[in-house]
Amino acid sequence: MSMDVTFLGTGSAYPSPHRGASALVLRTEGDCWLFDCGEGTQTQLMKSPIRAGRITKVFISHLHGDHLFGLPGLLCTVSLNTNRPDPTQPEPQQNQPCVDIYGPRGLRHFLRVTLGLTGSQLLFPYAVHELDPTPDQSPAEGQLSPEVTAEHGPLHPQERLGRTISLDVSSATYLLFEEKKFVVKAFRLFHRIPSFGFCVMERDIPGRLKTELLKELGLRPGPLYGRLKAGEAVTLENGRVVSPAEVLEEAIPGRKVCILGDCSAVLGEGPLSMCSAADVLIHEATLANEHREKAVEHGHSTPEMAAAVAKACCARRLVLYHFSQRYKPCALLKEGDDDVSQLKRQAEDALKGSETEVILAEDFLTLAIPLRRPR
Amino acid sequence: MSMDVTFLGTGSAYPSPHRGASALVLRTEGDCWLFDCGEGTQTQLMKSPIRAGRITKVFISHLHGDHLFGLPGLLCTVSLNTNRPDPTQPEPQQNQPCVDIYGPRGLRHFLRVTLGLTGSQLLFPYAVHELDPTPDQSPAEGQLSPEVTAEHGPLHPQERLGRTISLDVSSATYLLFEEKKFVVKAFRLFHRIPSFGFCVMERDIPGRLKTELLKELGLRPGPLYGRLKAGEAVTLENGRVVSPAEVLEEAIPGRKVCILGDCSAVLGEGPLSMCSAADVLIHEATLANEHREKAVEHGHSTPEMAAAVAKACCARRLVLYHFSQRYKPCALLKEGDDDVSQLKRQAEDALKGSETEVILAEDFLTLAIPLRRPR
Repeated sequence: MSMDVTFLGTGSAYPSPHRGASALVLRTEGDCWLFDCGEGTQTQLMKSPIRAGRITKVFISHLHGDHLFGLPGLLCTVSLNTNRPDPTQPEPQQNQPCVDIYGPRGLRHFLRVTLGLTGSQLLFPYAVHELDPTPDQSPAEGQLSPEVTAEHGPLHPQERLGRTISLDVSSATYLLFEEKKFVVKAFRLFHRIPSFGFCVMERDIPGRLKTELLKELGLRPGPLYGRLKAGEAVTLENGRVVSPAEVLEEAIPGRKVCILGDCSAVLGEGPLSMCSAADVLIHEATLANEHREKAVEHGHSTPEMAAAVAKACCARRLVLYHFSQRYKPCALLKEGDDDVSQLKRQAEDALKGSETEVILAEDFLTLAIPLRRPR
Repeated sequence: MSMDVTFLGTGSAYPSPHRGASALVLRTEGDCWLFDCGEGTQTQLMKSPIRAGRITKVFISHLHGDHLFGLPGLLCTVSLNTNRPDPTQPEPQQNQPCVDIYGPRGLRHFLRVTLGLTGSQLLFPYAVHELDPTPDQSPAEGQLSPEVTAEHGPLHPQERLGRTISLDVSSATYLLFEEKKFVVKAFRLFHRIPSFGFCVMERDIPGRLKTELLKELGLRPGPLYGRLKAGEAVTLENGRVVSPAEVLEEAIPGRKVCILGDCSAVLGEGPLSMCSAADVLIHEATLANEHREKAVEHGHSTPEMAAAVAKACCARRLVLYHFSQRYKPCALLKEGDDDVSQLKRQAEDALKGSETEVILAEDFLTLAIPLRRPR
């Protein structure tokens, strides 16, 4: 199964003509999951090969505007691109799947008010599943009072009530959902306001059946094949027990993609072990090492700090993004400008001796995440 | 005094790489007033010669997202560009003027929630002055219930409580403010949700003093000059009464700029007479004449409809904007594309015989509004 990540915006604080505000898409065989949605994300999507209408899930790392202000408009535009079999029906169509949106407490209220006050009708249902932050995720002044986050008033006509997801204290993670091919969890970061990282874990892909061997054993294609593939032992008519291990090629280990929101630290050891051996770890690097104090003061990271997280996780690839707008893309650099490629070198220096590859994200960079080899 | 209008976005429904969502700036000697603020307006501003930090007033015609979703982000970015004399002070500086924001009921709640939930601190105070719509401005389903529009919770730390402005029934207009150089009023439009037009009326510019004549009369520069210029008669020592009309050049009539939000009609005769002889009338033309039925169904206008309003007002120039995204800018036209210049021709046809000039807005078009000649 193909899998890739496309960066739609790699700038911090605000969108600029040179760097969009934070947004990236994880794509797996046409299914698109959007991570963060700064202002202008829908326009960036139009410039990319990804179709907005393919987005089925949205993950918001934290509620700062440069990660969120594009979401109401994006949902409206996705709706405009939605097939509408019966144009006389303003109600969402029965066959439209629900768009699931995950993010910090307060996100439900944000969408209900922005969509409600603007009279935005969507042609699909949506649900906001809120992550309940803990007080140690941000300084006291960054914590929103329940008075501000609690939703008021009636649900938006297309809103389905989402879940509230609490921290699993033993693993220090949040279970967002488990489905056939993926398990997705979140974890806490330290930032000026509660911020989260997301860990997308593909399930191992079962090995292929050794059909030649099965034929030799006298087994013909049929339901028994399915049971073996599902990991069940099978007893033949002659009494021989065939175990799945005998007749299956080696399984292909699932891939792991970790996407961290703005942060100056990861909270707890659980998340680091969950992100262990990530194929791709996407981490912010807002300012260069020499501005570490300023970065930390604003709840941000330097390349060295990002590299330390990648090292703790033994990540295969570390992708840096969320650069201060002072760092123009390489193609636009002029003499005297701050050079964004120094951020890559600083992370590489910090990772010397490890096998982690460092990649500098740019708007519209697509990064393929190849299948792993069988163990 | 120089005056011009710059279009930042001329597309309808959503921003695209070819046309920004609705926004334009009226500029008078460095003072910038923003009319509508669709998603991406701050990025369009960065591409234009206008500095976001110069914006002192914002006018929102109606609450549809393509006119509004850029406002929270724009305010945050204006704040980043605000001088901050004392960086240890997170509070708005004493010397920062209040940004006044005018728009329909519900706008105050929208900003309080979007800025509040995103932890957006502004370095200047702002106030939202709400226009109270009337039920005949939109179909029943487009009217927001007080349950949706009423603000809850505490004011944003930088919010100053704005006024609620009601319709002056006799003139069918809303008085937004009067200041030394300008009077600004609003008026009702018919659209799917309550929508407004704005009429910016420059006060007449007093004529210059005829200094040669004053010297002949024995008057020297001093306080008497000021009194004459202010329109007051003055009695000389010899008993002669000097009237202002004698010693002042002719006054220069103030200019008038009318900016209409989305609409399929203007409500009442009062607004048309207020907009009479507008130097510039800016009117939407979402779809070509042949799509009139669809345009009206969605509360929009065709060029012919826009021309009828311009004719009723005897506008000197009619600027068409807010084009369906199906109309690409002329420079990007390919064979078979819908041609936006047909919209101009359709308005011109409808205005044949009148002296109204028709202009097609494009993103980043700046239109100078020259001083009028004395009457």
